[in-house]
Amino acid sequence: MSHRDGMTLTSSGFFVSQEAPIHTDNPVPTPQAPAPDILRCAYMELVVTDLAASRKFYVDVLGLYVTEEDAEAVYLRSTEEFIHHNLVLRQGEIAAVAAFSYRVRAAEDLDKAVAFYEELGCRVERRAEGWTKGIGESVRVTDPLGFPYEFFFQTEHVERLSWRYDLHTPGELVRLDHFNQVTPDVPRAVKFMQDLGFRVTEDIQDDEGTVYAAWMRRKPTVHDTAMTGGDGPRMHHVAFATHEKHNILAICDKLGALRMSDRIERGPGRHGVSNAFYLYLRDPDGHRVEIYTQDYYTGDPDNPVVTWDVHDNQRRDWWGNPVVPSWYTEASLVLDLDGNPQPVVARTDSSEMAVTIGADGFSYTRPDDADEMPTWKQGEYKLGHQL
Amino acid sequence: MSHRDGMTLTSSGFFVSQEAPIHTDNPVPTPQAPAPDILRCAYMELVVTDLAASRKFYVDVLGLYVTEEDAEAVYLRSTEEFIHHNLVLRQGEIAAVAAFSYRVRAAEDLDKAVAFYEELGCRVERRAEGWTKGIGESVRVTDPLGFPYEFFFQTEHVERLSWRYDLHTPGELVRLDHFNQVTPDVPRAVKFMQDLGFRVTEDIQDDEGTVYAAWMRRKPTVHDTAMTGGDGPRMHHVAFATHEKHNILAICDKLGALRMSDRIERGPGRHGVSNAFYLYLRDPDGHRVEIYTQDYYTGDPDNPVVTWDVHDNQRRDWWGNPVVPSWYTEASLVLDLDGNPQPVVARTDSSEMAVTIGADGFSYTRPDDADEMPTWKQGEYKLGHQL
Amino acid sequence: MSHRDGMTLTSSGFFVSQEAPIHTDNPVPTPQAPAPDILRCAYMELVVTDLAASRKFYVDVLGLYVTEEDAEAVYLRSTEEFIHHNLVLRQGEIAAVAAFSYRVRAAEDLDKAVAFYEELGCRVERRAEGWTKGIGESVRVTDPLGFPYEFFFQTEHVERLSWRYDLHTPGELVRLDHFNQVTPDVPRAVKFMQDLGFRVTEDIQDDEGTVYAAWMRRKPTVHDTAMTGGDGPRMHHVAFATHEKHNILAICDKLGALRMSDRIERGPGRHGVSNAFYLYLRDPDGHRVEIYTQDYYTGDPDNPVVTWDVHDNQRRDWWGNPVVPSWYTEASLVLDLDGNPQPVVARTDSSEMAVTIGADGFSYTRPDDADEMPTWKQGEYKLGHQL
Amino acid sequence: MSHRDGMTLTSSGFFVSQEAPIHTDNPVPTPQAPAPDILRCAYMELVVTDLAASRKFYVDVLGLYVTEEDAEAVYLRSTEEFIHHNLVLRQGEIAAVAAFSYRVRAAEDLDKAVAFYEELGCRVERRAEGWTKGIGESVRVTDPLGFPYEFFFQTEHVERLSWRYDLHTPGELVRLDHFNQVTPDVPRAVKFMQDLGFRVTEDIQDDEGTVYAAWMRRKPTVHDTAMTGGDGPRMHHVAFATHEKHNILAICDKLGALRMSDRIERGPGRHGVSNAFYLYLRDPDGHRVEIYTQDYYTGDPDNPVVTWDVHDNQRRDWWGNPVVPSWYTEASLVLDLDGNPQPVVARTDSSEMAVTIGADGFSYTRPDDADEMPTWKQGEYKLGHQL
Repeated sequence: MSHRDGMTLTSSGFFVSQEAPIHTDNPVPTPQAPAPDILRCAYMELVVTDLAASRKFYVDVLGLYVTEEDAEAVYLRSTEEFIHHNLVLRQGEIAAVAAFSYRVRAAEDLDKAVAFYEELGCRVERRAEGWTKGIGESVRVTDPLGFPYEFFFQTEHVERLSWRYDLHTPGELVRLDHFNQVTPDVPRAVKFMQDLGFRVTEDIQDDEGTVYAAWMRRKPTVHDTAMTGGDGPRMHHVAFATHEKHNILAICDKLGALRMSDRIERGPGRHGVSNAFYLYLRDPDGHRVEIYTQDYYTGDPDNPVVTWDVHDNQRRDWWGNPVVPSWYTEASLVLDLDGNPQPVVARTDSSEMAVTIGADGFSYTRPDDADEMPTWKQGEYKLGHQL
Repeated sequence: MSHRDGMTLTSSGFFVSQEAPIHTDNPVPTPQAPAPDILRCAYMELVVTDLAASRKFYVDVLGLYVTEEDAEAVYLRSTEEFIHHNLVLRQGEIAAVAAFSYRVRAAEDLDKAVAFYEELGCRVERRAEGWTKGIGESVRVTDPLGFPYEFFFQTEHVERLSWRYDLHTPGELVRLDHFNQVTPDVPRAVKFMQDLGFRVTEDIQDDEGTVYAAWMRRKPTVHDTAMTGGDGPRMHHVAFATHEKHNILAICDKLGALRMSDRIERGPGRHGVSNAFYLYLRDPDGHRVEIYTQDYYTGDPDNPVVTWDVHDNQRRDWWGNPVVPSWYTEASLVLDLDGNPQPVVARTDSSEMAVTIGADGFSYTRPDDADEMPTWKQGEYKLGHQL
Repeated sequence: MSHRDGMTLTSSGFFVSQEAPIHTDNPVPTPQAPAPDILRCAYMELVVTDLAASRKFYVDVLGLYVTEEDAEAVYLRSTEEFIHHNLVLRQGEIAAVAAFSYRVRAAEDLDKAVAFYEELGCRVERRAEGWTKGIGESVRVTDPLGFPYEFFFQTEHVERLSWRYDLHTPGELVRLDHFNQVTPDVPRAVKFMQDLGFRVTEDIQDDEGTVYAAWMRRKPTVHDTAMTGGDGPRMHHVAFATHEKHNILAICDKLGALRMSDRIERGPGRHGVSNAFYLYLRDPDGHRVEIYTQDYYTGDPDNPVVTWDVHDNQRRDWWGNPVVPSWYTEASLVLDLDGNPQPVVARTDSSEMAVTIGADGFSYTRPDDADEMPTWKQGEYKLGHQL
Repeated sequence: MSHRDGMTLTSSGFFVSQEAPIHTDNPVPTPQAPAPDILRCAYMELVVTDLAASRKFYVDVLGLYVTEEDAEAVYLRSTEEFIHHNLVLRQGEIAAVAAFSYRVRAAEDLDKAVAFYEELGCRVERRAEGWTKGIGESVRVTDPLGFPYEFFFQTEHVERLSWRYDLHTPGELVRLDHFNQVTPDVPRAVKFMQDLGFRVTEDIQDDEGTVYAAWMRRKPTVHDTAMTGGDGPRMHHVAFATHEKHNILAICDKLGALRMSDRIERGPGRHGVSNAFYLYLRDPDGHRVEIYTQDYYTGDPDNPVVTWDVHDNQRRDWWGNPVVPSWYTEASLVLDLDGNPQPVVARTDSSEMAVTIGADGFSYTRPDDADEMPTWKQGEYKLGHQL
């Protein structure tokens, strides 16, 4: 990532700069083969241990629409989606992520994906049309970071339900917004994703240049996926967007009414990173789901990259509300192409939680005022080392 | 308060009953003199130690309107108010509350207030018109619970700014909603307030009948004031209402932009009690201000009283988000009629914080499921005994 | 009503004054008997000609909750209601209003109602408990203005659904807000309602003192009922409140999705009068229903009365959008106590529609600028005399 | 455009199909030269006749941010913009549009633009950096449809104000969303725009295949520009997006408070086309500005094209509210590269207004129910032929 010296401090307390090549000690080589042209994150395939319970959570509580279902799987989509699904719930033994699936621009991009990943020595499999319901031919890989990625172009079209206000709920989920992945070495991961054609929009660093997390996009929003520093490969969350903030509050209210408020892990709140309004839930298997709204357009090639200081207490929550420790430490396993969990490798760089809360960390609201947390905030920032 | 045996359990997890006479071991005697006819909570007089800093907080940040000001005091009102002010900021040595002021129906009610409190042996003073700017003749008392109460009818009328959308901010405060007082013995306080003509709308109890807090109203909302169990007399908070939830979120966003997010103590969230959407801020002196919206109509004489179990983790926050300890323990001093702080008497009944979090407390999302708090909630509920 | 000379012009373009005795040439005598103590408008009984169609409109489309139903009638309530119902749909031959029903403070107020109306020579009937399901003993009268009024205190309590967010729809109706009646002689009607204990909050006048409409309250909102000048007695509309403005927009969106947009008669928009956000619908029989949110507190005895100039084009819609002629001319019949439609008497005072639009009328956005309506507004204000 | 025979009728009443080559009798030839790679609509240059009045409208009323200004021009941007401006107000004699300006992906695209338009015989001019403040080298053309188009890549970066909530107003405009152009022959215009690299997202047709309007995009929203059938070349409107619907309502409320409600031409409402919530204003020169929020993602290559029946009364307003005639007939002149107004050519195809309202038109809410407009809608749909 860029060094902070070359950045411009904004009036909001973060820095901006132009995206730069990543320096990393242990890079994944850049393939000669061109990357496939990825349109957007398209769907996640989740393995769940109780399909009925998960269906209830995603359909009855969150209001996703069932495109199709059978005894083993439920195929769900958000309001404005016209491809077959944005989420597959598949019954299995171990809760995990089977695929982070991206749509590419054309059928030819599948061949590019094969060449790109094979050059890197990755395991690559072509799957025939219908291997996943509603999806045409696809390519599945275990990527150099250990994640199960899928690429496809062909898909069944279904009806966009944007105009079907008679079906909408107060907490309507309108589109799949992004994935978030946990990986030990963030600069290594970002450099690889740049080779795959992703553009960095925001990151969190300290002044020694340690990178704690980074956000990357193909479609012109803040991200299609993010890399969160931690023990990985694991899946941090999958995020759906609503139209307005009250839709997110309505989900909280409904969870309260159903006496399911313990599904709320963190939020609602306003992110510093992305400027979006957010909520984090945990599904019946503990898979984390974010509900998200109102980030910003990032589609220009010179879109300013935003860099946050890891000690800025407004970076993760603009209102300075604390991040619950589980949010930093817990994440979902990911599977290899045989359906076995990938081993998890520990992060060796500093932990964001450790450097910001607890005895060895610090956070500030105003950079010059780091010792001045009021009493009502102190308990929260002691929490880390108490656990 | 009513015993839970006579209550009806609702499908939302709380109980309802009809208001009943309070049994308390140490009652304030019921005066023979009739109570004054109180319309509503009208304004609070706050002593602040840095008038310029407080003015900045309430005017520049929160957007209250200045009706009048001089070197010693600023008189502020909310958007739809037509009386002179809802808040007086007065420069002083010690941050405290000088008056909880209520408007009565007619000038004759001042005589009733004098008789009512004199019969109770309270110190009572009549103040001439203009003693407080914009307010006609008033009666100030130190009530049997130790609080400085004021009653007035006459006031200067000012323009309601409801239609002045050119002046409104994204976080517009439209009316003064309620006060909240800290007092050691809640049943004693509630019984006294009933004698003063207040009606109970909600309370928090345990199954032995210990009362932790109660809400009482004159105008037909959930409250004009509440009694929160704790060391007192102290002022817990003063609350202003917005029209919509996004107005409250906008206040948080603005505090973030001003790098004042550490003014946010708790929330935003949805209350169980009152069903309102809320946010708690702390002003430059630490006085607590709530921003509040969307409770319900309570004006019928048989309005059901709502009773919450103190162990119900959704009573204070419908989404189950934790209450920061300072919210339970910190409050503002109140003054006697000479302007000296009232001594604070310790609560001897159980503390709500102690019985709900920490080693000796417990909270549930579902009554049958008390041991099942997920990992992301456990840290929060350990917090109490760690401090 | 007050003459404009004694009023204060506000910065928003309307006038304020204190409520004054009404001068009217043809008053209803003031009874010696005291008026019953009315709490609030409580429910309307509507006769509908196709019960299934009306049920579909109010339950499936608008989301009111069914408390009880049988072959002849459906009893509906809004989210936060704890009395049995706010609306009765009763199958009948002729679409009409059978009762404007108000709740009184105590059972004794029924006797007061009897004496009050009998002194006026009105037809008065006591109805036994259960005559209307869920309602105890009641008094029904044909009032001096020809309207079927009901008063009751006793009622079955039902569960408030405010916390049942799992049941709420995007267009949730949270409470019954008000009625609106059409009557030929507004000052006569207002004077009578003052005798019944109502307080005036707003009115529309011209500078000769002709009164076109007036709003009156018992509960401290802008109104429990209003008197709209026109041929009457007829029912102009019944209004339900939502929490937020987006709830009203959601109703419009849903009607579009159901291809029922022709149920929308006027709005959504912002009223000048009341400052509330509004929408007018027409039910399957043409009964008009308003959806309404965010007026202001009016409970102080010296609450300023707001007077609008009939030519102020922002009085009915703060955004200057035109009022569709049907809104002025169409209204529902009302029934006598035998269930027969009351004869309709023509208004002889000037018509608000005639004086504001068309060849003989005029409207202004700015008082000094009456000839300056831009081209996009001219068509609208010609509309009246073209029909 | 596609013929309706090959389209799929949706449950919402419109049709979907895949984008197809346009058949038009009088096509602009397809250049051999490749089109420039356009990112998005970037800014409009408006000539205004009273710069101070226009500045007041766009800055003081609508809240756009001034990046820079001088005696002749004001450069304005929306909240999240990081390029120099989204709107230039330039003092001039005749109110008109001087440029529809698009940002391209790279400096090389300027050469492509020159070649593309020169091959078509258009007048093309290169403008040096700084010819427009904040903009680098640019290419300006009079396109084959008669519109002044600009292309640029280089621009000064300014601070994104998304996090500056302390500056935001209740009606905050967050981004430039789209342009809308009036042209006599819509299929001819669309075919040309496809050659320029635009993709069609929606259109309005009748069953003989007459096209009344079409929407086209580069960035993945419903449009960067639209072609509205009518006398042209003229500019129909420029549109800014808000985050939420209440932001748009706040603009209406503020215009009312400023007694400028006559600036509101149409709305607020929900579009059928685009599914967005909208409002149309007219600036001091009559230039039309739309405020717009919440359309849908269109970035996939097989994004379904939505086709609306011109007689569907919900196509322009999903709630069936009438379109004011001025909205169809009035538009702004556009300038040639010397700053002279382009001559306006009359549309010869059917007029959307004529075929939908008035004696020779018809509109339906439900296709099988065309004669059943209720009385409150009839006046509106007669309006057309009455003018």
